[in-house]
Amino acid sequence: MEFHVGVISGDGIGPEVVSEAKKVLDGIGKKFGHQFQYTEILMGGCSIDATGVPLTDEAIAAAKASDAVLMGSIGGNTATSPWYKLAPELRPEAGLLKLRKALNLFANLRPAYLYKELSAACPLRADIIGDGFDMMIMRELTGGLYFGERHTEEVNGVMTATDTLTYTEEEIRRIAKRGFEIAQKRRKKVTSVDKANVLDSSRLWRKIVEEVAKDYPDVSFEHMLVDNCAMQLVKDPKQFDVILTENMFGDILSDEASMVTGSIGMLSSASLNDTKFGLYEPSGGSAPDIAGLGIANPIATILSAAMMLRYSFDLDKEADAIENAVRKVLADGYRTGDIMPQPGEPNEGITKVNTAQMGDYILERI
Amino acid sequence: MEFHVGVISGDGIGPEVVSEAKKVLDGIGKKFGHQFQYTEILMGGCSIDATGVPLTDEAIAAAKASDAVLMGSIGGNTATSPWYKLAPELRPEAGLLKLRKALNLFANLRPAYLYKELSAACPLRADIIGDGFDMMIMRELTGGLYFGERHTEEVNGVMTATDTLTYTEEEIRRIAKRGFEIAQKRRKKVTSVDKANVLDSSRLWRKIVEEVAKDYPDVSFEHMLVDNCAMQLVKDPKQFDVILTENMFGDILSDEASMVTGSIGMLSSASLNDTKFGLYEPSGGSAPDIAGLGIANPIATILSAAMMLRYSFDLDKEADAIENAVRKVLADGYRTGDIMPQPGEPNEGITKVNTAQMGDYILERI
Ligand SMILES: CC(C)[C@H](C(=O)O)[C@@H](O)C(=O)O
Ligand SMILES: CC(C)[C@H](C(=O)O)[C@@H](O)C(=O)O
Repeated sequence: MEFHVGVISGDGIGPEVVSEAKKVLDGIGKKFGHQFQYTEILMGGCSIDATGVPLTDEAIAAAKASDAVLMGSIGGNTATSPWYKLAPELRPEAGLLKLRKALNLFANLRPAYLYKELSAACPLRADIIGDGFDMMIMRELTGGLYFGERHTEEVNGVMTATDTLTYTEEEIRRIAKRGFEIAQKRRKKVTSVDKANVLDSSRLWRKIVEEVAKDYPDVSFEHMLVDNCAMQLVKDPKQFDVILTENMFGDILSDEASMVTGSIGMLSSASLNDTKFGLYEPSGGSAPDIAGLGIANPIATILSAAMMLRYSFDLDKEADAIENAVRKVLADGYRTGDIMPQPGEPNEGITKVNTAQMGDYILERI
Repeated sequence: MEFHVGVISGDGIGPEVVSEAKKVLDGIGKKFGHQFQYTEILMGGCSIDATGVPLTDEAIAAAKASDAVLMGSIGGNTATSPWYKLAPELRPEAGLLKLRKALNLFANLRPAYLYKELSAACPLRADIIGDGFDMMIMRELTGGLYFGERHTEEVNGVMTATDTLTYTEEEIRRIAKRGFEIAQKRRKKVTSVDKANVLDSSRLWRKIVEEVAKDYPDVSFEHMLVDNCAMQLVKDPKQFDVILTENMFGDILSDEASMVTGSIGMLSSASLNDTKFGLYEPSGGSAPDIAGLGIANPIATILSAAMMLRYSFDLDKEADAIENAVRKVLADGYRTGDIMPQPGEPNEGITKVNTAQMGDYILERI
């Protein structure tokens, strides 16, 4: 089959890691008889440099015309990059928020997974993390505080800034359904996270999630307050299967959970809407400090391509092939710098490789 | 001197732990020649049971008439307690929020401290946490999302809930000043946490904190995004000295940081306004599962009493005496159940004690 993939290489290490993911996709194409056509789409800092804005209407149209979009990373160093002197709506991240909204990408899946080969990188004690940790954060991505009305004004000579957090029952219902559906394919447990002891939006969240839960009697289900959840992710992360939560809580908790695995360079994500379309990107950032050096870890982006095959193209066999190749390359001892053993840890049979080598070795194992 | 202490014993383990803190305060009084007068103030579930509301006007007046308030804990099990069938503004927590606002307790100090005697309880690997971890979260406590206007309404037949997050420059300035002042007495570093790449309130936060920072040139100062901060607390917690942040971010991050220490039963907190008045309470909750068994850890409450002596009564020597006694009791091997060594950990010279014994042994060491 033929698939049209929009590609947002973006800024920083983005172009380097995306090019390895394309290499692997092409290998999959050869082996399984598919064709991937790529259309480069400008977003982020590179779009600001070229067009003055982080995302043009043409870029949105190109993304819409694709079957799915694969993204590297956008943005730079907020302290030193000239992009961060611009007005907020002209900065790189504004492009990403705009694209999420334009494509209605309300369901953000963020797996947090511990590779046993990398367990030495996990900051938690071995007896706490054990030898398995595999959870999924389902974050609502187009509502809440990040998309509410906001304004800054002078009230009686005092600067006052306001953001608003709004959720409708429909926004909550559709993400909740996705959360329970994903849980059915996993260990069948949903933890819905809110701050219902204080917020109206959280009380509506809780009510609707409870209604949805009734349709999934095979899935066990609990509520947890967000402050407690931030604790439990450190204290006993293995208790979680699927965390279902709103936009901002999901932003904070997914970053915390990714760090519990110790290897953010390994973590992919998918942002989905009601169709088969999706935007796939690594969980990590643009890492401007190592951009252009050819040493970034491309695995998260390669695994994001695997998620694209699975969720947008229904190519499960092909997605499995990528994920197995990644497991093999780790078992064979290949590591980029970010996942190398620390001084003092066992390093027998471990070989340090660069970005392109990692892509090649994964490709060879497909 | 004579001090008037309002006492909110509250719910769950509250009365048990507060009574040990009073025991220790009385010991301090005897040794250093002070008198502590206690007035019991109803708040939380016990107030609901007695009066129908979580905090009466009389209770607020009694708190205002005190020199400081020492609190145990409020609330129960959100799933099984009848208090959680009530309307939100009639639940136990609503009393606490109302009291914070009524007394203008805008500055919440939450130390997160690792006792080296308890380092085995820390969920992080020894090489990450090292043998010291001592940070302070300065959380804004009377603004932001938890105190904004909120409403739930039907819009075209669809339930819609909204919360608002507002900060004025004055609210930001006063908490920022407190953050820098505290940092001056510590390791002189402030990390201001926000989500300035998205929120207007965070952009105002950043602007005002930068202005305040100029008045404290001896304090080093950085901004950090909240999602990144949630990661860094797990990855490298020792980088922090003072985290300065708004209400909701502080709620989430302080619970995460407390868990990094592994012993929330040891952590105190202070909520201060512009006067010498303060509300002092343990960071942990009401633990309804062990209420009435006499086995709860009273140390966090005893250390909260020490904070009261230091911040409200300017009795530094006396506060030191309590803190030293706590260190001694740990060094002497006394532990309540929650901080006992886990099976497999060294337990030589360790004695398990109950709530009252812990209070007695601390008292003896003053
Ligand atoms: C760049 C930023 C707006 C974004 C977000 O907070 O949603 C990022 O942190 C993420 O988690 O994808
Ligand atoms: C009980 C609740 C309203 C409160 C808060 O979130 O402020 C608690 O979690 C805390 O952190 O003191």
